[in-house]
Formats: sequence, structure tokens, C-alpha cells
Amino acid sequence: MTAQTKRILSLNAFEGGTNLPADVAALVARRRNTFGAGSVLFYDEPLHIVKAEGCHIYTADGRKYLDLYNNVPSVGHCHPGVVAAVSAQLAAFNTHTRYLYDNIHDYAERLLASFPPALSNIVFTCTGSESNDFALRLARLATGKDGFVVTRTAYHGNTTAVTDVSPSSSRSGKLAPHVRIVEAPGSAAYGADIGAGFAAAVQAAIADLEAAGIGFAGLLVDTIFSSDGVFADPPGFLAPAVAAAHRAGGLFIADEVQPGFGRTGGGLWGFARHGLVPDVVTMGKPMGNGYPLAGVVTRPDLLQALCDEYGYFNTFGGSPAAAAAGLAVLDAIEGEGLIENVAKVGGHLKERLAALRGNAAGIGEVRGAGLYLGLDIVGEDGTSPDGAGASRMINALRAKGVLIGAAGPFGHTLKIRPPLCLGLDEADYFVDALSAICRGA
Amino acid sequence: MTAQTKRILSLNAFEGGTNLPADVAALVARRRNTFGAGSVLFYDEPLHIVKAEGCHIYTADGRKYLDLYNNVPSVGHCHPGVVAAVSAQLAAFNTHTRYLYDNIHDYAERLLASFPPALSNIVFTCTGSESNDFALRLARLATGKDGFVVTRTAYHGNTTAVTDVSPSSSRSGKLAPHVRIVEAPGSAAYGADIGAGFAAAVQAAIADLEAAGIGFAGLLVDTIFSSDGVFADPPGFLAPAVAAAHRAGGLFIADEVQPGFGRTGGGLWGFARHGLVPDVVTMGKPMGNGYPLAGVVTRPDLLQALCDEYGYFNTFGGSPAAAAAGLAVLDAIEGEGLIENVAKVGGHLKERLAALRGNAAGIGEVRGAGLYLGLDIVGEDGTSPDGAGASRMINALRAKGVLIGAAGPFGHTLKIRPPLCLGLDEADYFVDALSAICRGA
Repeated sequence: MTAQTKRILSLNAFEGGTNLPADVAALVARRRNTFGAGSVLFYDEPLHIVKAEGCHIYTADGRKYLDLYNNVPSVGHCHPGVVAAVSAQLAAFNTHTRYLYDNIHDYAERLLASFPPALSNIVFTCTGSESNDFALRLARLATGKDGFVVTRTAYHGNTTAVTDVSPSSSRSGKLAPHVRIVEAPGSAAYGADIGAGFAAAVQAAIADLEAAGIGFAGLLVDTIFSSDGVFADPPGFLAPAVAAAHRAGGLFIADEVQPGFGRTGGGLWGFARHGLVPDVVTMGKPMGNGYPLAGVVTRPDLLQALCDEYGYFNTFGGSPAAAAAGLAVLDAIEGEGLIENVAKVGGHLKERLAALRGNAAGIGEVRGAGLYLGLDIVGEDGTSPDGAGASRMINALRAKGVLIGAAGPFGHTLKIRPPLCLGLDEADYFVDALSAICRGA
Repeated sequence: MTAQTKRILSLNAFEGGTNLPADVAALVARRRNTFGAGSVLFYDEPLHIVKAEGCHIYTADGRKYLDLYNNVPSVGHCHPGVVAAVSAQLAAFNTHTRYLYDNIHDYAERLLASFPPALSNIVFTCTGSESNDFALRLARLATGKDGFVVTRTAYHGNTTAVTDVSPSSSRSGKLAPHVRIVEAPGSAAYGADIGAGFAAAVQAAIADLEAAGIGFAGLLVDTIFSSDGVFADPPGFLAPAVAAAHRAGGLFIADEVQPGFGRTGGGLWGFARHGLVPDVVTMGKPMGNGYPLAGVVTRPDLLQALCDEYGYFNTFGGSPAAAAAGLAVLDAIEGEGLIENVAKVGGHLKERLAALRGNAAGIGEVRGAGLYLGLDIVGEDGTSPDGAGASRMINALRAKGVLIGAAGPFGHTLKIRPPLCLGLDEADYFVDALSAICRGA
């Protein structure tokens, strides 16, 4: 295992500690007995949570935390509209979609109306992993080829097939034979013209797949490159790489699990910032605000090709309760002006973080769009990645009542992705806490 | 496509009809526009549902149906205890398991207590497909081999990897190179000694995988063989096949998505009827009564081997709302004596159905355990499979207010798997309706 790989897998992970509060120690012990090697907890001292609301999480010791990490409860923890809609639906009817039921069709139509017209079909699943797994099959059946190009620290989910295209999940760093990696689209890798550099890298990866006799099925990227460390600018930089993928006969799969549903502050979808029409769009986490709801949007011809070969049915996918959650999330985004809020608060936050650079020890570049920001924690030279420093910062922020995570190949990028209802005061609270930590206060 | 394969994929499927009620026709049109080739509906005239309760489903035209098909709302449609528990949890806290939260540990411990002691670790997922996908990886990592043995009409889920081991999902009938098929464990294939015959078939399949240089990773079966047409007897018949799998160094994966959580009437688990300790148990559908909750139970050493190689995290898996659903389902099973009810009502139903054979035209063998029964619809000779007759029967039962499905390679087996709260009167209502249809009444 390379040091780099190890870092990714253990970002902000609890490694076992002493002097834990009694309730935490007891739960950790129970957890190890039942979850075994599968237990992963955050923080040097894990949080024992009792409730959450809006952008705040409350722990058993009576503390209140500002949540800058959780993008699943995207319209706010325990959003009353979503809770009421799902609860009412659970009490009325909730089984699979081999019967007719109104709300799933209301939801499918409303959601599809937000996509380019060519993307007119939807398949509901339960998780982003299932969505990406389905997308890989769509690409393989459409092209008759097996190869995919992804970024170095990509994470797209947890099924067998999707783990193959998620290099960040492998402890050995060994790649599946049908997968090629390109560096994330930042200036460190590609200099000033990120679009041209990234496209050239994708093109070379495709050529390598073709030379190996594997062939090219698709380019799969999270359109805000979150696990790579957040790369959003300049808008449009993805277009040349997608053009290269299309020229080579492959599909472009836009993984919107992270940037989708308003997070980038300029509309519902991350791919739209790049002026693109994907062949396949996958959705997950924020779609149901915590209710397991996910989906794949694509062209009818691509879906037909898969269904000619395989039966596909997803028991819980698009159930009435899932549709109720999905509709309530869209209601919240529209009714509460969340996209406008994301643009306003995200813009303010990014400005304040950018102003820290050079003025606060250890603070490097800030990147991102809307309320998905990446802030590099760096060494004394002002640029070298400081993963250990990021880890200390995360735990120091926790002590000041702010929850945050890390990303990127060196784990040195603070990953800022709060619920979309974050307010200006809350953004300021975070920046003030960060500044205080940098000052040693 | 073979006629047999086509039948499996289209069991009780709506093929497009005329003279549909206006509301049904309108929803079908909306559905085709958005779901495209992925739309699968039940019945010659699809049901437009408005609500459900206990064992009953209500449609927009004011009709009430007895539900003998849906095993997801296993403790009853819209069970008040489950609805209340999930609704309360959604309003309190619902995010992922990288924090400590009490109820998931209460649930993990309570569930694991129902398993043989060696199976002491659990991984929570969202769907049976994710569970089986994870199980395949466990087996591959434990054995270093790639090959699996499954039954001819098996269905284990919908991911790329699980579709490979689900022959019933393939329209072409083409098998993945690492998969071998054995006939379902009935007397038609194996004569009087089903256990010995099935074990010999599994052994031959393993030998074939080894001869091909693929090697044997595991035997994966649904322990009530539901999509194969329901094969439950004699209890214990699976043991010799599992012994053969173990002798060859492979794992036994018990897929409990169908038989689990009390359905067979003799305890929570289908594998227990066969006196077995699996290496891996996968769970899904009934676990959360409709809330997407699923899981994998296994030995710590097997889980450790996977986690040494890959990071695995499931965002929605084992969330507080999922745990609330799971706990409420166990409460219902225990508090309402559902396993005892299953044994009583299932036993009564099986007896009455067995008595029809020879006395009612078209009624053949009945198989199964508890409230998972398969009833063959046969030709005039009393044994030949009559898939078309089963399809007519399903639609005739619908007309009499009973919902039921089909299974098996010829689609001639009525699949009876109602909510576990089915009463004796409701069982009688079904048998009386069936008899009336056989009499042409």
C-alpha cells in the first residue's frame, strides 16, 4: 500500500483511542463486536449523536455542532417538509413500481424537465452505487467495449463493478485491467490550460485502452471532482475531454451524486456548468435528503439496448415513499430559494477563505463552486500538501463545534459541503473558527 | 431468445392493451414517456393503486384486493408500528454510520443474536442486490477463485456482478464464463433422493469450473428456490450440496432475501430448515418492510479479508431510519406472533391446495413452507407445465380480488407469498376463488 492510498482510505478515521467518554467507549466496543473490520468512524473522538436539525447536529454530551460535511440531508437535517411527505406516504402505500401509482410519475416528469431534452428516460435505483453500476452496463452495451477512464482519486460507489472504477477504494492501488486513470483537472497537473491538458490526458488513456485491445466504453467523472480534491474552474473545462470521448465512440457519464441537486449554486446540475449534454447522468445521495433514492437519466436508445439484453428491476427504486421524498426535496430547493442561497453563501464563503491565503498559517488554495468548496491545508512554503495538518485542523474544528471532512490524494483538502440552507452567519462562524485555529487561539 | 427465457422475463407482464380505463391508460402513457424500455407493469390491465393496509391493496376504481404477492411489506402494508418508528426517526436524526448512534447497534445486536454464533459480523446495505454483490466479493477474496454455482432460474439481484449469477435476467440465455448452472432441487430433476441428486449436480458443476481453470468460489442459492418455482422439501436436502461446496474449498452463500424474516414459519431463516451454518447470509426485501434496508452477515475472518483489500462504505446502509424500520419489523414479528401465524395459516393453506389436486382442473403439485408456497398449474395430463394457464389464472384471480404472481422456468407455478399477517379467512377466500375459477364459475 502506498502512503498516498493509505491516506485516502483513512481520511479523518478513528484509529482507536484512550480516554474516551464512557458512552462513546461503550458504543465503540459494541460496534467492533458487530461491524468488525467494516467499522469506520470519523474523528479522533467519535461523535455520539442524538439529534439534528437544519445545519446542526447535537451530541449526547449536550454539544451543538455546525455541520459542514453532510451532503445527504441536503435541504437540511430532518427537513420538516421531507419528513412529513415521507411519513404520510409510508402510512398510505409503499411498494414497488410494477403497479401504477401517481406520485412516481409526477416526480419522474418534474425531474426530467430539469434535463436537456435528449435525456428523456429515467431508471430509479436506491443508491448512487446502483446508479453508477447501471451506467457502466449502459456504456458497455452501447459500445460493445469494456474500458473506462476515471480520475486518480475517484470514488463512484461500492459494487463490484463500480469499485473497479473507484481507485480511491483500493488499498493495494492495483487497477482493474479495463480501467485507465488520468490526473484530476487542476493546474498542478495541467498548467494554465486545464481543458486542453485534461482532454489530452483522456485521449492518451483512451488510446492506451484501444492499444491493449480492450476498447473504450466511457469517460466517468464526478463533475466537481470531489474526492480528487474539488476542481470546478474554469467552467467549461470539461468540454474538450468529453468531445475526445465522443470522437472515440465512448459515452460520457456525468456522476452527479456529489454536485447535483443545486449544490454548485448555478442550477440543479454540475454538468451544466460545463455546457455539456451527457449521455448518462447518475444521481444519488442528496436526491431524497436521506431516504435511499437514486437514479439514472439517459437517452431512450441507450436504455432500450440494455433492456433488450437484460431484465432490470429495482424493488425499492422509485417506490411511493422514495418519490414523496424526491418531490419534497424539489419543493424545498424551489420554495426556499436554495440554489440562490447556495450561490450567495457559497460565494461569500469562498471570498473569505481566499482572503485567508497568505494571511493565515497553513491555508492554501480554495476551489469549488457554490457550497462545494475545497480548501488546501499546506506547509510553510504555502503550497506543499499537509495531510497531517488537515487532520489536526479537522479535529481542532470539531473542538470548536464545526464538523468537516477531507479529500484529495494527500488528504490535505478540507471538503466543505454543508446542507444547502447554510446561512451567512454560519459561514462566518466557520471562517472565524478556522482563523482562530490558524492563530493558535 | 428461447421460449423459456422469454416466459421468465415476461411473467404476468402488461404487454400493452386496449380498452383500459382512462386513468390507467393515462398513467401508462406517462410511464412510457419517462421509464421507456425500463417500464414493467403487472397484469393485462395494470392496477392503479391508491392505498394499502395489512394484506389488502385498494385501487382508484374503489376495489379492494387481497395481496398474496408482496413480500416487501412483510409484516403488513403500512404497518402502524413500522410507520411510526421510521417517521419518528426521520424527524430526529438520519445520516450515515460514520458517527455513533444508538439504535443501529441495538438492531445489529438483536439481529445477530438470531444467527449461529460463528456469524457474528454484519454489514448493512440498502438492497438485496448490494448484499449479494458484496457476498460475491467476500467469496472471491476468501478463495482467490472466480466461479459460482447457481440454479437454472435463479434471480439474485440487479448489479453487474449479480446479474451474472442471475440466469433468469438474461434474455439471450447466455451465461457468464465463470458461472455454472444446476437444475432446481425438485423430484423432476433428481428423482426421490433430491439431496443426493442436487449434491451430485453441484459437484459436477464445481468440477467443470475447476477443469476450465476458473476455480470455485461459492455456491449461491435462495434457500427456498423461489424463482425456480419454490422447492422446500424435504428439510435438510441442501446439506449434502453444501458439504460438497465446502469440500471443494468454496463458500456457501445463503440468499435469505426471499425466505428470511419468518416466511417459512419455522424461525427467522430459511437455511435453518436445512440444519446449515452458511459462510455468508444475505438479506433484503422484508427486512425494513419497504424501507430500503438490507445486509450481509458473515464471519469476522471473511469480512477482514475484504476490508484488507478494499474500503467499503454504504452511505444509506444502516442509517438511523433504516435501523428504526428493522427494529420495528422484529418487534412486529415477535410481538404479533407472526412466525406462529405463518406456520398455522401456511399449513392450512397448503393442505387445502393439496386437496384440490385431482379434484380441480389444472391444479398440480403444491410445494413450499410457511407462507411461501408454489402451486403448479398443469395441463390435462395433470403434470405438464401450463404457463399460459397460469397467466389466465393470475388475471382471473385479479378479477376476483386476489393478487398473485408466477415463478419457475415455464411460468406455470403460482407464487404465493402474502404479508405474514395473512389470516385463515383470507387464505380460505383465496382457495375458494381458485376453486371457483377451476369450475369455470
